[in-house]
Amino acid sequence: MSDPITRPGRLRPAPENFLSAEQISEVKAGRRDFLRNSLLAASAAMLAPLTARAGEGDPAILQLPEWSTTSGRSVAERPYGSPSQYESQIVRRDLPGVFSKLPGNSVSFTPLQGLFGIITPSGLHYERHHQGWQDIDPARHRLMITAADPALLKTPKVYTLDDLLRLPPVSRIHFLECGGNSASEWATAMLPTVQYTHGMLSCSEFTGVPLRLLLEDCGVDYKKARYVLAEGADGAALTRTIPMELIESGEVLVAYGQNGEMLRPENGYPLRLIVPGVQGVSWVKWLRRIEVGDQPYATREETLSYVDLMPDGRHRQYSSIQECKSVITSPSGGQTLLSKGFFNVSGLAWSGRGKIRQVDVSFDGGRNWKSARIDGAVLDKALTRFNIDWVWDGQPAVLQSRAIDETGYVQPAYRQLREVRGSQSIYHNNAIQSWEVLASGEVNNVQVL
Amino acid sequence: MSDPITRPGRLRPAPENFLSAEQISEVKAGRRDFLRNSLLAASAAMLAPLTARAGEGDPAILQLPEWSTTSGRSVAERPYGSPSQYESQIVRRDLPGVFSKLPGNSVSFTPLQGLFGIITPSGLHYERHHQGWQDIDPARHRLMITAADPALLKTPKVYTLDDLLRLPPVSRIHFLECGGNSASEWATAMLPTVQYTHGMLSCSEFTGVPLRLLLEDCGVDYKKARYVLAEGADGAALTRTIPMELIESGEVLVAYGQNGEMLRPENGYPLRLIVPGVQGVSWVKWLRRIEVGDQPYATREETLSYVDLMPDGRHRQYSSIQECKSVITSPSGGQTLLSKGFFNVSGLAWSGRGKIRQVDVSFDGGRNWKSARIDGAVLDKALTRFNIDWVWDGQPAVLQSRAIDETGYVQPAYRQLREVRGSQSIYHNNAIQSWEVLASGEVNNVQVL
Repeated sequence: MSDPITRPGRLRPAPENFLSAEQISEVKAGRRDFLRNSLLAASAAMLAPLTARAGEGDPAILQLPEWSTTSGRSVAERPYGSPSQYESQIVRRDLPGVFSKLPGNSVSFTPLQGLFGIITPSGLHYERHHQGWQDIDPARHRLMITAADPALLKTPKVYTLDDLLRLPPVSRIHFLECGGNSASEWATAMLPTVQYTHGMLSCSEFTGVPLRLLLEDCGVDYKKARYVLAEGADGAALTRTIPMELIESGEVLVAYGQNGEMLRPENGYPLRLIVPGVQGVSWVKWLRRIEVGDQPYATREETLSYVDLMPDGRHRQYSSIQECKSVITSPSGGQTLLSKGFFNVSGLAWSGRGKIRQVDVSFDGGRNWKSARIDGAVLDKALTRFNIDWVWDGQPAVLQSRAIDETGYVQPAYRQLREVRGSQSIYHNNAIQSWEVLASGEVNNVQVL
Repeated sequence: MSDPITRPGRLRPAPENFLSAEQISEVKAGRRDFLRNSLLAASAAMLAPLTARAGEGDPAILQLPEWSTTSGRSVAERPYGSPSQYESQIVRRDLPGVFSKLPGNSVSFTPLQGLFGIITPSGLHYERHHQGWQDIDPARHRLMITAADPALLKTPKVYTLDDLLRLPPVSRIHFLECGGNSASEWATAMLPTVQYTHGMLSCSEFTGVPLRLLLEDCGVDYKKARYVLAEGADGAALTRTIPMELIESGEVLVAYGQNGEMLRPENGYPLRLIVPGVQGVSWVKWLRRIEVGDQPYATREETLSYVDLMPDGRHRQYSSIQECKSVITSPSGGQTLLSKGFFNVSGLAWSGRGKIRQVDVSFDGGRNWKSARIDGAVLDKALTRFNIDWVWDGQPAVLQSRAIDETGYVQPAYRQLREVRGSQSIYHNNAIQSWEVLASGEVNNVQVL
């Protein structure tokens, strides 16, 4: 890499590119062009003040700033810290009314365009609630393990949080993705930024007790008990069926810890089921009950939603593993490249089947591919960060990433996905994402078949 | 493990065991017994309300709680999340006046007794400031790379944050420990809880540009340039010498990211030097300048402090690598075991020399040792979580952990440490920590030689 730094200009990797209420109305009305144009105008205006250049004559180095000449603030001021005042635009954002009609049935998206590495700060973890979030009193919360039939489980039990905290825990870093992530993008490139197209995606270190240990403590009969029903304590009493193979593997956890501390309320405090590789709805929040059964439960969330409408008109159920997927987070939709020259192109890859083996990146809409660098941690069913060098020559370009997991599965193009799944699906869209870079440096969401 | 769960009683793994202003005065006066007694009384009182038992007749399962019968809260309420209201005691705590006389010269400790896994939430990352913390405007911040002698560096340069964000980054999970961590414990077991004895210790995923890349961009001559001086932009203008070998290895980063988001202000926003394995003072916060030199700089923080007073009366300088160390975080000082029976004993191990190979735990003050489980990620120069089963028979016990790193170095007992280092040191105490469990279940900090 030859001296990229002296080239003028820059990219804001975490632009404050969000939608106004007016723009959200346009999305709801299906008017995409308006949205795109108004967003670009907003981005340009926000980037304009960043005109100071480093070097001789730079006022920033000709006089000492106030932070070098004053006494700082005390540790006592913030017993629990929070981000800089200058990062106030890096927040979760919702699209009220777009995906749901009721306030409790809501979504907030992780600002992937402003994040680094693989860990998602808990304060920015995406949310998908069916009846809002609750801050449950842990002293009054219980986890009950029961059975549909007494032959499946010897001794039903009730655990307090303190009971669970005495047991041997494990800690694992895993991604969590909503089965509806990228749902808006099936038919056409709809939403303008990666926060909205891919932001129902986060990755944390979870700590908890393997559910296997609890079932064995209750005397489960694995020969007969082949499924469990997991139930949440929120107003939706959300329920999902989990196949016993996943539990027997030891991977499914009854978790209380996330990124080192107790779970956040909106992520299921004080107990959440962790089902690595599986779509988020199965990671039941505010977990209050596990029922052992011998067949799938076909609950509301397994029949009316989270199902795939196939080309032959039938619904596919229980397609819960999140297949291999990736997305470039920088540069991404809504950002603007302010000069030609060197850019680090960065993104995330993940697979519900295991580890990421390789990520390829194309700068010409899929005609040519180059392998990206993966030099951080590559963990099982976790986000994996990739980076690749790019020297932008100022010409239009289309950026894509394509992940391959350790099973050899290759992330599909939209054309390939539709050949199998048709065009009427909502859930489980893992197609290759395309970002178009215009000669002006503007970056747009486009769909390449 | 045979049915640990049905045994009555519990441990609160994250007790609200902090010191009152009155207790801190006692610590300053060197009166340790008062402190210990009053803390135990406080802990017992706080644990008392937790008397509800699971199972039949448990009011918590006889009627639906309000969180199951009401609409929840909206995602719009918290664009940036925060912990549950029930976790308000899991915070950083300081000891005003104990370690310093001025508010800006301050310390806050990470609540290790309440944390899980290896990642420290950024809001709970310990702090050690020499002149308080600042929230620097990133648009006005610069990183200057200069040289003591023009022969060492071809082209001095000034980088903006946006310049750095365009360059290829890496992300690494590393521990960060103050060289003064456990300083209070050299002479005698002084402070009551692991938050105070070992809480100048945290672990994060850091993202940034290798300093090597920047030095090479400026045309460094590695043959002549053997050290750099790193300088902060805070009121202390804190400076430390870093040997060039560490930079040439590629491990030293100019970081902007921590746990996925931008650094927090109190952790050096917008730029901090990451020097894996080395004591915290060298991880210069609010980094504004790197000067390339051909010899150590012997700055204030390398001559008046962060030096080791050896038994022969001489000072040892530049002993900056944090040697292999470990501590049991649960159960730990200030906590109370409320029943006999099964407990998961959990703790952290780390080494500035590389990965942790093994952690042994003793329940009898070091006479017998058993190897603990390490089943999470074992990363280079990162915190490593260990766990071990323990069935407490109700008799007094002394719990210890002893870590061994991949170089074969074994964490020393106090007797072994003092044989080499004497008893006048303050910094770099990596001796084995002992927690005494009384028949009453109370856990105290004690020193075992």
